[in-house]
Amino acid sequence: MRKVVFYGAVSLDGYLSDQNNSLNWLFETDTGGETTYESFIQNVDTVIMGRVTYEEVLKIQQDGEALYSNQEVIVFTRDMDKDFKGVQIVHENPVSFIDKLKETDGKLIWVVGGGNLLKPLLEADMIDEWWIQITPVLLGKGKRLFEDGDYLRRLELVETTSFGQFVELHYKK
Amino acid sequence: MRKVVFYGAVSLDGYLSDQNNSLNWLFETDTGGETTYESFIQNVDTVIMGRVTYEEVLKIQQDGEALYSNQEVIVFTRDMDKDFKGVQIVHENPVSFIDKLKETDGKLIWVVGGGNLLKPLLEADMIDEWWIQITPVLLGKGKRLFEDGDYLRRLELVETTSFGQFVELHYKK
Repeated sequence: MRKVVFYGAVSLDGYLSDQNNSLNWLFETDTGGETTYESFIQNVDTVIMGRVTYEEVLKIQQDGEALYSNQEVIVFTRDMDKDFKGVQIVHENPVSFIDKLKETDGKLIWVVGGGNLLKPLLEADMIDEWWIQITPVLLGKGKRLFEDGDYLRRLELVETTSFGQFVELHYKK
Repeated sequence: MRKVVFYGAVSLDGYLSDQNNSLNWLFETDTGGETTYESFIQNVDTVIMGRVTYEEVLKIQQDGEALYSNQEVIVFTRDMDKDFKGVQIVHENPVSFIDKLKETDGKLIWVVGGGNLLKPLLEADMIDEWWIQITPVLLGKGKRLFEDGDYLRRLELVETTSFGQFVELHYKK
């Protein structure tokens, strides 16, 4: 069975992006010249995200090459009229869709975000591993990684990695 | 000038306590026989908290000795009728009160919680250092450490300490 994982940075107060959907606070944080991303992405062949997150990805891509050039990109949306080039649009329930996807052959399935997509996956206990980079910024407002939901999960700490001003926490189910 | 600090544990999804105000999820987490508390509390002579947090402290104390026996305890409340034995009750604005307290001689001033008290202190940029113990539990609901507020702060990572299943993040202004 393929694993479903979350990998991503949050502000210390738990936001994925600020109230203007900006990630400047993240890009302005010192990595010390290092990151765990290059080794992580080599183990991923499918990235899934919500429509809002994908529209942010498109904005970032305007300045350069595709962010996920070696992965299949799956975008969930309830909007039947949405269409994006080069990605798979899914209108189905994410839980049942990903349940089937896990049965196919492949590498890690990376849930990029956002909180709206993560919440039903958390409630269905579908996230196998987490890599969360804590960024030393307090934003006060924005889109939370963890929205209120009906779940209660105890994870297991696997490892902690520091690079620059980031602390990466790695947990598994 | 005395420093104002926060020291405390949160769930990975950012809650200080669950929706029933319980901390069982915290007490059930393996510390590996270690904690940073004993060395921290020796540097503290004043603990401040909101009324709701203090009422939780009273419940814990029913089973044993006083939690803060070597510290002055200050409890903020807007309720003019509230009275607790052996602690200083303050009805004044926490920001102006703590501003004056910082000018007096003494050791660290520890803001125990909760989020309602922290928010105005954060908005006034009054927290000098943070020690946050990340607990590998996702609660889904409860009282958040960081409520939405009007602040934007970049901190500096000082140190990361792991013990048992906890990861302690230490930041300063």
